[in-house]
Amino acid sequence: MVDINWIPQRASSIPLHLQIYQYIKNKILNGDWSLGTTLPPQRTLAKQFQVNRSTIVAALDELAADGLIEARVGRGTIVVNNTWSLLASSPPPDWISYVRSGIHAPNMSLVQEINRAEANPAIIRLGTGELSQELLPNKMMENVLQLKINETLSLGYSEPKGSLSLRKAVSEHLKTKGINVSPESILIVSGAIQALQLISVGLLKPGAVIFHETPSYLNSVHVFQSAGMRLFGVPLDGEGIMTHSIGRLKRQHNGALLYTISSFHNPTGTVMSEERRAHLLEICKKEALPIIEDDVYGDLWFDNPPPMPLKSKDSQGNVLYIGSVSKSLSPGLRIGWIVGPEPVIDRLADIKMQTDYGSSSLSQYAVEQWLKSGMYDEYVQEIRDKLWDRRDFTIQLLEKYFADIATWTIPKGGFYIWLRLKQSITTRVLFEKSLRENLLINPGSIYDPTDQHHLRLSYSYASLLDLKYGLKRLSELIRNLK
Amino acid sequence: MVDINWIPQRASSIPLHLQIYQYIKNKILNGDWSLGTTLPPQRTLAKQFQVNRSTIVAALDELAADGLIEARVGRGTIVVNNTWSLLASSPPPDWISYVRSGIHAPNMSLVQEINRAEANPAIIRLGTGELSQELLPNKMMENVLQLKINETLSLGYSEPKGSLSLRKAVSEHLKTKGINVSPESILIVSGAIQALQLISVGLLKPGAVIFHETPSYLNSVHVFQSAGMRLFGVPLDGEGIMTHSIGRLKRQHNGALLYTISSFHNPTGTVMSEERRAHLLEICKKEALPIIEDDVYGDLWFDNPPPMPLKSKDSQGNVLYIGSVSKSLSPGLRIGWIVGPEPVIDRLADIKMQTDYGSSSLSQYAVEQWLKSGMYDEYVQEIRDKLWDRRDFTIQLLEKYFADIATWTIPKGGFYIWLRLKQSITTRVLFEKSLRENLLINPGSIYDPTDQHHLRLSYSYASLLDLKYGLKRLSELIRNLK
Repeated sequence: MVDINWIPQRASSIPLHLQIYQYIKNKILNGDWSLGTTLPPQRTLAKQFQVNRSTIVAALDELAADGLIEARVGRGTIVVNNTWSLLASSPPPDWISYVRSGIHAPNMSLVQEINRAEANPAIIRLGTGELSQELLPNKMMENVLQLKINETLSLGYSEPKGSLSLRKAVSEHLKTKGINVSPESILIVSGAIQALQLISVGLLKPGAVIFHETPSYLNSVHVFQSAGMRLFGVPLDGEGIMTHSIGRLKRQHNGALLYTISSFHNPTGTVMSEERRAHLLEICKKEALPIIEDDVYGDLWFDNPPPMPLKSKDSQGNVLYIGSVSKSLSPGLRIGWIVGPEPVIDRLADIKMQTDYGSSSLSQYAVEQWLKSGMYDEYVQEIRDKLWDRRDFTIQLLEKYFADIATWTIPKGGFYIWLRLKQSITTRVLFEKSLRENLLINPGSIYDPTDQHHLRLSYSYASLLDLKYGLKRLSELIRNLK
Repeated sequence: MVDINWIPQRASSIPLHLQIYQYIKNKILNGDWSLGTTLPPQRTLAKQFQVNRSTIVAALDELAADGLIEARVGRGTIVVNNTWSLLASSPPPDWISYVRSGIHAPNMSLVQEINRAEANPAIIRLGTGELSQELLPNKMMENVLQLKINETLSLGYSEPKGSLSLRKAVSEHLKTKGINVSPESILIVSGAIQALQLISVGLLKPGAVIFHETPSYLNSVHVFQSAGMRLFGVPLDGEGIMTHSIGRLKRQHNGALLYTISSFHNPTGTVMSEERRAHLLEICKKEALPIIEDDVYGDLWFDNPPPMPLKSKDSQGNVLYIGSVSKSLSPGLRIGWIVGPEPVIDRLADIKMQTDYGSSSLSQYAVEQWLKSGMYDEYVQEIRDKLWDRRDFTIQLLEKYFADIATWTIPKGGFYIWLRLKQSITTRVLFEKSLRENLLINPGSIYDPTDQHHLRLSYSYASLLDLKYGLKRLSELIRNLK
């Protein structure tokens, strides 16, 4: 049997039966509905897609005409072909086998499903780690773009490390965090994920071991695993990654790097304490274990800023520091930076040139203007206040609807609440039940494959109304899980 | 002994001795000057760097203080340390060994030298494959950016395949080339190089064999080799890649893909003829050998457009088509596209999301406006005329200065003249002699490791004055080579 968590959009200009045809075709071509899968009866499909049976018949006719399905006596309608080749007029290359051969691992299927669901505007996204459209500075961006173009915007390729004037602006910006580095030690990247990608293929051997907090954002992406590295989780408490076993682990597993989100950790929201930072630096220095410090949430504090980044106390060049405007200003600009020892930055810059010849000069120009004009600081102050309100609002909802079924810690910044359900859950079941009601959640298993107790909630994305409706309904679904 | 092709900049605010210190330090840290290398005598260094001997002494003192060099009786000054670790106050991680471990190959050293030389504004770039700053539409870009932001610019993440409205605009644009594809078959990428990168890690196994024209741009980048694929050159004549042996080669080497630049080939400028295109398509169809058609120069024709792309005749989905605005509108925008069968595009989109979460939304917005407003067509017409003039000017220079020492074909579009020298040359020698005179050339060996006869000239980048001076001087250097 097959799962269907989607209905066609009535408002669309595409006829309903073609939307359904396309949906099923994709399921088959993606291998989600594999060869021999029996489709549900037409009546059931009609109910699931919320359309008339005649619409289903029309959609199935199209699929049959493509040779993808066949009605068989006594067996119902089954998937008889699943290669794209069938759709062409003569045998083309078997792209599906190419698609399956690639080195890079596909996204986790749960993550792929989340990505797909996000394309549906009717979905309420309770776990999405981005700023809501309404929080993004569209109006201020107009002002930035209408500045006269001067010598700092070049439509040509930028230097290998990125625009020098942007790197200077970033260098100034980092001073406010106690990080004093020259523009030569900064590489502009297309967001933090690219920073990790470059580190992965630029500095590590296949098989290298990366330590990270458990749970961790790192488990939700394949950036290291696709290059053959292995992830190794280290427990986390209220003060950050637990340091007592790191020395032993490093020696035992010949660890290559330690990845940490030191402030407003994704997904738990934890801020590493001052003491823990000092201890982590000391141990990693002693063990010659380099640290990747991912600080993309660092600017998003509420009442008090978090302790200074590890990088600010890093006299030995032990830390590669990653920053970005994606979480604070605009994910769409795709601008972030890596800070580290020059030979490392040079190497990563060389690979970046080979990968994409640098980041968008337009985006680099825009970020430079934001930083230099002071508009960034002004805007981030606003965002902090708005996120703070959203956090309070969300915590109130949790107190109202989740007090008896879950526990949580109140985050001091960032986007996330790491909700711990008192009963253990089967991720898939809750995920699918929620999606059927247009609620999209991020189960804890994305961040720790063994997790059966958590959800990552985010107060940054959904509207207040949606948060209210969505969290209430989610609490009911959880209660009914049993 | 060591090579020095660089002099400090007198106009810089950095003292000369510190510039030299930094230059030598980089050479040592990058491993260019390895452990035990003897530095030239101070007098020679002073001459090579064009400074006083006291400046050299000051620079060497700094290096000695860092522990990188030591004066030894009877042996001169030698490199005694080459790890970055020395520069730190206590043993940090051995970043150099990390830098050496990475999977991704560094750029060819010649290419790295070219990249470095390009940072020097005094250099005349006779082979650079980009539009000169003066040809880039800075003024028109201001107009595009000052359009009011409407619903098409979102500062959030874009969809996995890129902004739908841009994909629609690209789909319209491709119709003018006889390519009829839906936006679902288009993936927006950060330039053609990223397209190749995604294909490399998304569709191929390590060891897979890629056919390409010899010589080829593909030899100048490591995008396939870094992922463990092997390149295999197929000869090229005046009509394009030679097709007669492709079937045999495919079977013999189990070829996975064929890469071709069908119009205004890089580096030879060749346009594949109508007949050759038909034959190539037929053979690749028969052999089920997919084609990557790189068409980034296709818009840059002079008197007549090239034949329609292979993709326009590709009824079986045999061709992955790559386009870009980098060569025509602005390399800095970092916007290109791949067109192919949907399952392939879906797979590449998934990897792109994992690599950089999509291309800059600002750049995507800008390109969409250029295409939709008709400004792109208008501007490209201008660029064609300007490049045409530059080609004519350059051909006149060749006739004047190179008639007796070289041959060439007159290109009908694109950027390049593939100059064939009558005498064979040692690439390194000519490259370095030229660089010492601030002339940067692209030797043929970049595009075909065995080549000893060619230079890739470009009429797109250097100013007319620089072209005139540079080509004249280059012809003298070649004459003096013997």
